[in-house]
Amino acid sequence: MRVRLVIEYDGTAYSGWQLQAAGDTVQARIEAVLERLFSQPIRIQAAGRTDAGVHALGQVAVFDAPRYFDPLELRRALNAMLPPDILVREAAEVSPGFDPRRDAVVRVYEYRILNRELRSVFDYRYAWHVPQPLNFPAMQAAARVFHGRHDFAAFRTMGTETRTTVREIYLTQWERRGDLLLYHVEGSSFLRHMVRSMVAAMVEVGRNRLAVEALRELLAGGNRAAAPAAAPACGLYLVEVRYPQASAHGGS
Amino acid sequence: MRVRLVIEYDGTAYSGWQLQAAGDTVQARIEAVLERLFSQPIRIQAAGRTDAGVHALGQVAVFDAPRYFDPLELRRALNAMLPPDILVREAAEVSPGFDPRRDAVVRVYEYRILNRELRSVFDYRYAWHVPQPLNFPAMQAAARVFHGRHDFAAFRTMGTETRTTVREIYLTQWERRGDLLLYHVEGSSFLRHMVRSMVAAMVEVGRNRLAVEALRELLAGGNRAAAPAAAPACGLYLVEVRYPQASAHGGS
Repeated sequence: MRVRLVIEYDGTAYSGWQLQAAGDTVQARIEAVLERLFSQPIRIQAAGRTDAGVHALGQVAVFDAPRYFDPLELRRALNAMLPPDILVREAAEVSPGFDPRRDAVVRVYEYRILNRELRSVFDYRYAWHVPQPLNFPAMQAAARVFHGRHDFAAFRTMGTETRTTVREIYLTQWERRGDLLLYHVEGSSFLRHMVRSMVAAMVEVGRNRLAVEALRELLAGGNRAAAPAAAPACGLYLVEVRYPQASAHGGS
Repeated sequence: MRVRLVIEYDGTAYSGWQLQAAGDTVQARIEAVLERLFSQPIRIQAAGRTDAGVHALGQVAVFDAPRYFDPLELRRALNAMLPPDILVREAAEVSPGFDPRRDAVVRVYEYRILNRELRSVFDYRYAWHVPQPLNFPAMQAAARVFHGRHDFAAFRTMGTETRTTVREIYLTQWERRGDLLLYHVEGSSFLRHMVRSMVAAMVEVGRNRLAVEALRELLAGGNRAAAPAAAPACGLYLVEVRYPQASAHGGS
């Protein structure tokens, strides 16, 4: 029985999603609980390998259960055993061929900036604090630069192996909610550190230290060294992963 | 120079506001920073001694600075040295006679309940998770029972020494904001664990395990043993402390 989970986590305490030789990871925590539940090692596979400190509202992952387990009971059992900063929001049976990474058609991320002079004791793990006033209309214009199909070679971590650095962005916009600036971005897939690099560049635009036209040239030029460093991990959320109707739903 | 601070803190990591023989406290953290800043021990006094795990949005405290310090500069210096879960929102000079505890005329608290089946990875330190459906109109009716002047002997920690257990409540009401239930309460002052005991009783009403009439009798009877245990500390916030116009403002 292949099980699809939708998982929410506070990434603050973890070295990211993926199993590592050293450091606590979300994957390791969930696999430990699955092993207790099924009395055998179980491997879980996720749609996106979030980095250390990055949060998720809707990470999607699958595992193969060695025996049938009612999905609602499974969710209840997992949530009772998982730490308070990891939660299974949904559990459902999926077709045996479902692959959360390969089948994903849209990935939705959000980046949160707390834009006010004073930091916040409640948000410091959940938003990047930028105390300087930001030019919000310029940031909105900057966001539109990323729309469509581009080579994002300038907006990623150097040294990551990928077949291609071309990605398509379907939605890219800023929203202001009080002191919070929220960046919404949807794309087919993202390179490592891509969203955080894009946010860092847009904040440079908001600080009037980078012109929108210069950002456009940065994107066209593909020179990583010319782009600003990535924005802090604490502001980034994997919100949702979307699948074609057929692959995401339905059991055997 | 007497300085009045308005302080916000996440109480999760602290054994409450007040200095203790053992355990980290908010007071100890602020006094340590003041001592570094002024090169001598400085005692700070607060309006309310919040318990372990209780948060503050607007705790008020005073200290006597041994030399003049521009209040805005002082705020900046304190915030640069304080840990991320403690923040000075305001710093201002006040008259030498100002006493944050004795001069306070209204204290405002808020209690947050996350009322949905699933817990939240982001709110578990900041709200009490009650998974069962609650009868919200009944809780609103229960809140009205506390309005006015009553002997709150049944709604406090046993064994606390106080001159009188009579207190006056000016505002007591529930607000629903999505999955969050927010209890707003304003009073002259509060007994130890009083708000949390009131909330626990109102949740019993919301679970249909205690009738509003029985709550009224509990309040009239003053029998602590008959009342439900206090609600968890993590849901409670000291929101604001109000003073008569004359005492709170103005320097020498």
